[in-house]
Amino acid sequence: MNYNKNFYPIKSNEEIFEKLVDEKKDIGYYKLPYQHTSDIKEYAKTVTQKDIVVVGIGGSSLGTYAIHNFLIHKQNGKKLHFLESTDPLDIKRRVSKIDLNDALFIIISKSGTTIETVSIFKYLHSLTTIDKTNCVCITEHDSKLNSYAKTNDIKTFEIPKDVGGRFSVFSPVGLLPLAIMGIDIDELLNGCKEVNNSFFEKRDYYTHIMNKARFLVENKNRFNINVLFSYSSLLEGFNKWYIQLWGESLGKINFNGTRQALTPIGILGPVDQHSFLQLVMEGVRDKTVTFVKVEEFGEDTTIPDISIPSLEELDYVNGIKFKDLINMQADSTIKAVEELGDIPCDVITIDKVDEFNIAKLMYSFQVLTSTVGKFVQIDTYDQPGVEIGKIILKNKLKKGE
Amino acid sequence: MNYNKNFYPIKSNEEIFEKLVDEKKDIGYYKLPYQHTSDIKEYAKTVTQKDIVVVGIGGSSLGTYAIHNFLIHKQNGKKLHFLESTDPLDIKRRVSKIDLNDALFIIISKSGTTIETVSIFKYLHSLTTIDKTNCVCITEHDSKLNSYAKTNDIKTFEIPKDVGGRFSVFSPVGLLPLAIMGIDIDELLNGCKEVNNSFFEKRDYYTHIMNKARFLVENKNRFNINVLFSYSSLLEGFNKWYIQLWGESLGKINFNGTRQALTPIGILGPVDQHSFLQLVMEGVRDKTVTFVKVEEFGEDTTIPDISIPSLEELDYVNGIKFKDLINMQADSTIKAVEELGDIPCDVITIDKVDEFNIAKLMYSFQVLTSTVGKFVQIDTYDQPGVEIGKIILKNKLKKGE
Repeated sequence: MNYNKNFYPIKSNEEIFEKLVDEKKDIGYYKLPYQHTSDIKEYAKTVTQKDIVVVGIGGSSLGTYAIHNFLIHKQNGKKLHFLESTDPLDIKRRVSKIDLNDALFIIISKSGTTIETVSIFKYLHSLTTIDKTNCVCITEHDSKLNSYAKTNDIKTFEIPKDVGGRFSVFSPVGLLPLAIMGIDIDELLNGCKEVNNSFFEKRDYYTHIMNKARFLVENKNRFNINVLFSYSSLLEGFNKWYIQLWGESLGKINFNGTRQALTPIGILGPVDQHSFLQLVMEGVRDKTVTFVKVEEFGEDTTIPDISIPSLEELDYVNGIKFKDLINMQADSTIKAVEELGDIPCDVITIDKVDEFNIAKLMYSFQVLTSTVGKFVQIDTYDQPGVEIGKIILKNKLKKGE
Repeated sequence: MNYNKNFYPIKSNEEIFEKLVDEKKDIGYYKLPYQHTSDIKEYAKTVTQKDIVVVGIGGSSLGTYAIHNFLIHKQNGKKLHFLESTDPLDIKRRVSKIDLNDALFIIISKSGTTIETVSIFKYLHSLTTIDKTNCVCITEHDSKLNSYAKTNDIKTFEIPKDVGGRFSVFSPVGLLPLAIMGIDIDELLNGCKEVNNSFFEKRDYYTHIMNKARFLVENKNRFNINVLFSYSSLLEGFNKWYIQLWGESLGKINFNGTRQALTPIGILGPVDQHSFLQLVMEGVRDKTVTFVKVEEFGEDTTIPDISIPSLEELDYVNGIKFKDLINMQADSTIKAVEELGDIPCDVITIDKVDEFNIAKLMYSFQVLTSTVGKFVQIDTYDQPGVEIGKIILKNKLKKGE
């Protein structure tokens, strides 16, 4: 008797780890923590404009938005805008908030020919003069957008060929706009390094990530939905970034032709206690839940010791800091979920609202995604499923339908 | 032989319809389309403040946000703010954008004792004087918040007892702030009436809703995730509202003790073509997809006929209106999904960006939710699963942990 095809062997952790070590040669995001940032920081210092406009979609904007959103209180006086949708009313409204005479346009497209980005870029051309004084491009070395920039003497920053859009936040795609906004990008990279080193030296992050990935994969048919329950409004952008990372990386046909998918959902506490929580608590047991908490918000606003006539029964919140209230809300929800006993959940605590911590969080999710991808034996870094729609669209447009 | 317990009979459409007709007596949202609005409109006219601040969470804010978000370009010069999260950095940032001396505070809580709402209300008390000149309450007739308002001669609007939070957008909860912002609330109710009449007179909406509900229920174990793919940034709020409505209404233990759940996901086109679409296209077939399109945005911004050197290959978009581009993107994605042949999908087209159409959309989702609830034999209108966490929190707070 012979086994001719061992068609879905779940590998040992050690085998997976070896494969990850192996892919570090080809997959660029693992190298980003160690890049030089002086060119980016130098450029950022020269920016005088007040309105910073990121023109880019998907992986070209989500990571930047996530970090900007988390560190919004830590930035300089500049305003960061995002233009990405082709919704005409949305474009109009967003553009109306930009002072076109005091704006820097950051055009971001890995391929250089993203239809949404180029269409909006054309529209901006009709509104104002765009040249080397108010434009910078972030793209691949040999893209058409790079040729455009070179011809017009416009500064460019490069997206390495081996860094995919949804893994590009720690390349110039994210670092340049964030540096301009006053974010300490070296501290971001320090956070990435800590996770990268810890994982590949088989310390803490190795254990956490490998165990979690293995659990998710072994139970993927039973728990096909992974809920990220973030207890801070500042993590709204992070949730969106996670959804792209998880969904687009892991929704794939694997090497045996088997469809894979872990479906990501991002919700926010305490707001979604009044929305999605009921479904988690009483619905079908098809979800894992990862709670994300912020240990120290660094903001001591307190519920004042005011007794409102008729509402005295709520006086037990008096004198409590909001940061303690939200964490007690998180802990209460976590306890309620744990007590049910049949919903797999884990808790990630972010120490502080700073660059180092958000980078650790995001980088560790990238490594987790790569690890799960290896277990289910897919190409984590491509997205072949979205090409069909693009071709249909191009044909429609060319035919002038 | 005897059948003692017919434990999960899928009822006939006719039986379900009869049950819905029957529940109209007890469930208040069916009556809202026919309410009188003169009191609301009169009050709205008297509001002179520039900053309108909704203090409310979950069902007290999501519906208002959805309609405000969809009709943002149609409103008067006032600014609508939402205070709901207990995140201290989020509260600080939002409050800093309000002119406290030129603000109207709309305090919304059905029970009158929602912890987030009362905590924020207390905080606002410490920042400014709150009295009948700058405050209005929306609550149940016999709530503590109503007593507070009465004592202080503060105007109140009533949430009927039989209208639950996530079904309350067409009660004063949504109508009052929206009327103040210049939205035509009678046109909202006209949209609701059209759907309500059509459904209960067994015309178009009856057929659409009943067929869809039946399909979703009969296939709920195979397709446990329902993706709403909205092709307009203006529908971001609607997506969030849908998630609460669907998740909190249908994530229940039914009358046989069986866990029910259809898990809602909301995504936006074209942005999420660069994110979630890959998962839909190639992932496990566990999702239905409902596309929502806007037929006429009423905004003719056109991609100018500009050829950018090096980027000429994209000149085929020149002269196209953005509204046509986004709809071609939607149609291309729809075609790509349909061609796969094994993802159940349907398409909802909104004629125009106006009050009548957003109300039709939202009201029809309410009726769809009620219909699915009847099929799976749950109480669509309660949310018992969130109580445990609230009790744990209250104990923590009272013990001063």
